[in-house]
Amino acid sequence: MHPIRLLVCSAPDDPPALLVDQPRLLAALLRAGSPLTIEPTFLTSGDPALADALPHATALVGWHLPTDLIRTHGAQLRLIQLTNAGVDNLSPFDWLPPHTALCNVSGIQAAKLQEWAAMALLMLNAQMPHFATAQRAGLWSRRNTPVIAGKTAMIFGTGSLGTAAARAARNLGLHTIGIRRRPAPTEGFDEVLGLAGHIAALPRADFVILALPLTPETRGLAGTAFFAAMRTGAGFANVGRGALVDQPALCTALERGHLAGAFIDVATPETLPSDSALWATPNLVITPHVSCDDPLTYIPDALDVLIDNLSRLTNGQPLRNQVDPALGY
Amino acid sequence: MHPIRLLVCSAPDDPPALLVDQPRLLAALLRAGSPLTIEPTFLTSGDPALADALPHATALVGWHLPTDLIRTHGAQLRLIQLTNAGVDNLSPFDWLPPHTALCNVSGIQAAKLQEWAAMALLMLNAQMPHFATAQRAGLWSRRNTPVIAGKTAMIFGTGSLGTAAARAARNLGLHTIGIRRRPAPTEGFDEVLGLAGHIAALPRADFVILALPLTPETRGLAGTAFFAAMRTGAGFANVGRGALVDQPALCTALERGHLAGAFIDVATPETLPSDSALWATPNLVITPHVSCDDPLTYIPDALDVLIDNLSRLTNGQPLRNQVDPALGY
Repeated sequence: MHPIRLLVCSAPDDPPALLVDQPRLLAALLRAGSPLTIEPTFLTSGDPALADALPHATALVGWHLPTDLIRTHGAQLRLIQLTNAGVDNLSPFDWLPPHTALCNVSGIQAAKLQEWAAMALLMLNAQMPHFATAQRAGLWSRRNTPVIAGKTAMIFGTGSLGTAAARAARNLGLHTIGIRRRPAPTEGFDEVLGLAGHIAALPRADFVILALPLTPETRGLAGTAFFAAMRTGAGFANVGRGALVDQPALCTALERGHLAGAFIDVATPETLPSDSALWATPNLVITPHVSCDDPLTYIPDALDVLIDNLSRLTNGQPLRNQVDPALGY
Repeated sequence: MHPIRLLVCSAPDDPPALLVDQPRLLAALLRAGSPLTIEPTFLTSGDPALADALPHATALVGWHLPTDLIRTHGAQLRLIQLTNAGVDNLSPFDWLPPHTALCNVSGIQAAKLQEWAAMALLMLNAQMPHFATAQRAGLWSRRNTPVIAGKTAMIFGTGSLGTAAARAARNLGLHTIGIRRRPAPTEGFDEVLGLAGHIAALPRADFVILALPLTPETRGLAGTAFFAAMRTGAGFANVGRGALVDQPALCTALERGHLAGAFIDVATPETLPSDSALWATPNLVITPHVSCDDPLTYIPDALDVLIDNLSRLTNGQPLRNQVDPALGY
């Protein structure tokens, strides 16, 4: 079997825990018991050597892609294996050579996201955004809250992350409503409704979680009308992408007390600058895009997907997690 | 059957959700299908009419007790049914008439506390105290954390609240170590150790939760030596009483970064004043004593205990949840 020439393209500021390196690649091959031989080249996006390396590579792995160079020098690539899930930053996909498959690692973040969703639901139910705001003001401001069991969570997105959030909600005794583009009964949800009817359904939710990809259809989805349709005192969370939310509209809904609290793990822009009004918005909890990545398992799990896809490529089988550029996920 | 003369003693600032009133008493009798007849008198602690009413009462229910009046006018009382769990504020018990039983409602807070403990463990694992501190400073400060499953929680107290915390921990896949005065295998814990050996055991814990009554033996338990024995980067939570903790020692452990985070639902004093240094201590999350009380079920559940104990009293059976003044719980 010919060795597979693999270009490993790191981002300049990848933390060590999220780096693809030789030992981790070898470990993944061993886990898979794979007969593949891989010849890896390790470069950082922005390195001028990429232009020389790309035409000889069969596959590329990374998340911070040199799209302009791929357009001009990547026609030979058969597979681009992303080490992340969202592809909104790669759109439009006119840089993608016609015979190159683009795959993501959707699915490997489910266990971590499930715990984050359980935490977010419990925090919203227990009025933790209120208590965090009160703490900033040095106020002992009591609010007793009932248990969460029996309440309703509406989860936008029924993919890997949405399903993980639904699992967390069900474990806490919540009723789960999934929202997806084409409504259809979906494993793990008590009900599933279509995106087109979400405004009418929003008043049923005690808690809303966005776990959607960012596409032209979902950009700015949660705006003034969305928050107005939510029940007074409801809670809101976003684990998808910051641009799913009209941030000024969210701040207004919180400042007016219409929503009891919100918890966002994504924002626009990221890194959110220190002078952003979001930081001090009442009853808003912010975390810096950490809901999905378990540093102990993330890269090993991503490389398991890579090795699987390289095997499928070699054997002429359909690839796993292939992104549809027309849909944007 | 003679009617039971019941003195209902409210605190001046009881919120409506936590008030014992006639409809709630009747509803409890109906739930129990009880043949008892109750003649209630409703007074507020501090009302001068208490001195006249006490000598005629067989039972008293409340939590803000007129202990001086009970000492002088309460010798006829057969039962004082507290609507709360902790009795530290009633110690020493020299005001308690010799033939009066003191009972609490230990047990009714378990469901709410279990959710609070799950939330606290997930928040400590996910570095939420760090993110809350970073948010106050307007800082997007990423820290990726692994899932919580497989870690170890050490829970001080194996009573109703400690057992509920252990149930939360086990549901999240944690190993649970219980700490109690007299070590003995205890339902719901993977191991149970004696309080005397807690310093040696502390380095095993990723997370420590205090769910103990406040007694002379437990006052100030979590101090400099305690925190020093905890593992660097571990998390700490307290749902018992504020005075279990040496608060300056906790602040020091957090300021030095020895502990990654702490979450306290109780403090000294309560209400914690606005100028307390605790509010701005890094990586410390504070909630205002709200971890245990579900406003929808708390008083109904407490009154179920009351009706049960009045039946037992009438039938000469042992009472439920009787407090031992010598032990202080």
